[in-house]
Amino acid sequence: MYKLWILLASIILVPVVKSQEPEKVIRSVFDEALADNTADLTLKYLCKNTKGRIDGSPAAAEAVEYTRQALIRAGADSVWLQKVSVPRWERGDEHCRIVSQMFGSEDISIAALGLSVGTSPEGIVAKLIEVHDFEQLRTLGKKNIEGKIVFFNRPVDNLLINSFAGYSGAVNQRTNGASEASKYGAIAVIVRSATQAMDDFPHTGVTRYEENISRIPAVAVSTLGAEKLSHWLRSDPQLTVHLTSTCRNYPDTWSYNVIGEILGKQKPEEIITVGGHLDAWDISEGAHDNAGGCVQSVEVIRIFKKLGISPKRTVRAVMFMNEEMSGTGGKRYAAEAKANNEIHYAALESDRGVASPRGFGFDAEGARLEKLQSLSSYFIPYNIRDFDKGGGGSDIAPLKELGALQVGFMPDTQRYFWYHHSANDTYEQVNIREMQLGSASIAALIYLIDLLDY
Amino acid sequence: MYKLWILLASIILVPVVKSQEPEKVIRSVFDEALADNTADLTLKYLCKNTKGRIDGSPAAAEAVEYTRQALIRAGADSVWLQKVSVPRWERGDEHCRIVSQMFGSEDISIAALGLSVGTSPEGIVAKLIEVHDFEQLRTLGKKNIEGKIVFFNRPVDNLLINSFAGYSGAVNQRTNGASEASKYGAIAVIVRSATQAMDDFPHTGVTRYEENISRIPAVAVSTLGAEKLSHWLRSDPQLTVHLTSTCRNYPDTWSYNVIGEILGKQKPEEIITVGGHLDAWDISEGAHDNAGGCVQSVEVIRIFKKLGISPKRTVRAVMFMNEEMSGTGGKRYAAEAKANNEIHYAALESDRGVASPRGFGFDAEGARLEKLQSLSSYFIPYNIRDFDKGGGGSDIAPLKELGALQVGFMPDTQRYFWYHHSANDTYEQVNIREMQLGSASIAALIYLIDLLDY
Repeated sequence: MYKLWILLASIILVPVVKSQEPEKVIRSVFDEALADNTADLTLKYLCKNTKGRIDGSPAAAEAVEYTRQALIRAGADSVWLQKVSVPRWERGDEHCRIVSQMFGSEDISIAALGLSVGTSPEGIVAKLIEVHDFEQLRTLGKKNIEGKIVFFNRPVDNLLINSFAGYSGAVNQRTNGASEASKYGAIAVIVRSATQAMDDFPHTGVTRYEENISRIPAVAVSTLGAEKLSHWLRSDPQLTVHLTSTCRNYPDTWSYNVIGEILGKQKPEEIITVGGHLDAWDISEGAHDNAGGCVQSVEVIRIFKKLGISPKRTVRAVMFMNEEMSGTGGKRYAAEAKANNEIHYAALESDRGVASPRGFGFDAEGARLEKLQSLSSYFIPYNIRDFDKGGGGSDIAPLKELGALQVGFMPDTQRYFWYHHSANDTYEQVNIREMQLGSASIAALIYLIDLLDY
Repeated sequence: MYKLWILLASIILVPVVKSQEPEKVIRSVFDEALADNTADLTLKYLCKNTKGRIDGSPAAAEAVEYTRQALIRAGADSVWLQKVSVPRWERGDEHCRIVSQMFGSEDISIAALGLSVGTSPEGIVAKLIEVHDFEQLRTLGKKNIEGKIVFFNRPVDNLLINSFAGYSGAVNQRTNGASEASKYGAIAVIVRSATQAMDDFPHTGVTRYEENISRIPAVAVSTLGAEKLSHWLRSDPQLTVHLTSTCRNYPDTWSYNVIGEILGKQKPEEIITVGGHLDAWDISEGAHDNAGGCVQSVEVIRIFKKLGISPKRTVRAVMFMNEEMSGTGGKRYAAEAKANNEIHYAALESDRGVASPRGFGFDAEGARLEKLQSLSSYFIPYNIRDFDKGGGGSDIAPLKELGALQVGFMPDTQRYFWYHHSANDTYEQVNIREMQLGSASIAALIYLIDLLDY
């Protein structure tokens, strides 16, 4: 009789999910993600109440505290903050006016690029020269560029099916345009927004100055604004632009990565990280980029806890700070992991928006890649089919040195750059069902990688 | 020398696309779809200038003429209208007010269901009874239902991954709820909108009356409205509802399918149809449902002509009228095809919204299905991977009798029912890049099916 009780107790105490087929656990993960509203309301709070949460801002501090609480509510075994040094940059007044002796004048809306220096409060008035790439700067030379504002107007190649490839092909104008133009004596740059959209939203993003060059102001103009500017310029090459952007850089300050974990039951020393980034551009709610990725990471903790999934390894959700300006959050996380001799088994990043999930990209080779790709069979019922080579993300990249498998969450990204870095990246642009299908697929993949030791 | 000229001439005169690999032709199809703006502006016109183009309305007549012109502009070899008998139904004033002796009163927004009868201008006042399915009607019986308004409140099952399966599981309340409730003496029905969204948009759609029952008014309420109504009803089961809906049915009238074709070069007698439907609900711009599908069909003609693709078979784009209320456009098209002894080789319908393309569904078996599925290899560069069994659409279904292969265009449909049949289905909810990736994939598939005789 005593033995029978022991037997019964052991049967009863086995967590439900342990006794189930992986297929059933995954189904319960999707059910939970689709039935529960926490992710929706968390996303809404981050978008509406911590809008513009750029590094070091009060909104970013609010987002840190809010996601710390969200991780506690999700049931994480422990939650902590990790101090991160971040740049502090603030947008000022910004105006841009086209002035033509022939055709009058017209304003176009702009957004200063992150980390850009500003103009004086009176702004600058100068002629404009339109270029499409850095080679053209070299051809034009100092004699044609000096004292002028360089207008970088190379569009994103809309014909590239991979929307990130299109973006990558244009974004060096934003990241390096100011430095390159400065070498030829330009006094400022206006950069066409890096998006496939043709609309009125300027898309900001970081600009980086090389050492030993004169730092000149850099602003983005919307794609329609760029078309307009180019149109005026074709008709009056002598026109001037009155550009004001009183943004400022301040000394670095402190912020935090927000971390919550479920301690592994069998190999607690091995860590699987899942993360998004908490900072967002100051002009944006940062819904797709990247409150959605943070919420999906919190969801992994919440869903595991709610369903009683006890991973063998420690699963950590990380809201990285400062992905946008200089990546110190990701670097700090990896540096501390290294200093603590942590074992990082795998890391997954969601930073491509939160539209419908298409699959995952794995930075793996040979037999390991094949094993990981074989996991696609579990995702057939969810119509998630893309298990491809190549993937990761900038916040988890520093973990590669520690041997962590790099995994990138791959949603449909065809409309992602409509929102990216602009005031158009709002809560309303996220479809919660699409986001939650992503949350579930991320949770399911981490569950499988851990369970099967892939 | 003369022979050399002949040789040179014959080389030069071969249309570019004929001399190319299918892979290159397909690439040029995608390039054209993504580079050209015609589809964007056509969609915008249909949404903004022919909004609410329900059967027999002035807006529908405008849409007929506009798409006729669009097909001519697209370069169709011939364009014509095909007369179709359509129902004529008009929304009237509509109001719904909850009145409780205990808690006061509150309005909820409603939308009459298509083909519904109306109330008197004064409306009706009655108690409410909430039910979730027709079985519950039977259980409650006449004694509990007679003289009341039946409130059908079964939600769409949000846990179903296939959004259409979720919709299908709830929509009988809308299509048959009035007839079923009438059998037990109900005097009207209020139906929860068939959508996974939780918002304030009522989603209309057709309701169908059985013969020999008393026809009672039927209206939709938004999902949040349904939650509110249910909430009030739990607290005060004695509350009444004052429901007014002065919609009316008129005698059938005439409208048109709009047809444009490219005559086949080798087998002009064999026809491949590609279509969407032109009618839309009166409260909606009908962007996803289904101006987008019409535009994609016109794009097939435009792209083929622009690129000089000369199909072996005749390719017809059809804007079907009256998909929404009784499908007479599709029936008429098939009936005329049959009367004319036309040979219909294949038919493709785009009526699942115009989000990012995922693939196609084929109503085929065995070797033919395998051949069609093998076409997926051509779509790998476009990340279009779903070539599945099962597909078609209600407008092309009558062509099945004539032996036409049935193909359904399958976009991502996770957010489709956010828009479907509601005022939320606007031009702004379509991402043009997503729609055009769909246009290109449809054109490419038709090109391949024709070229390879699949």
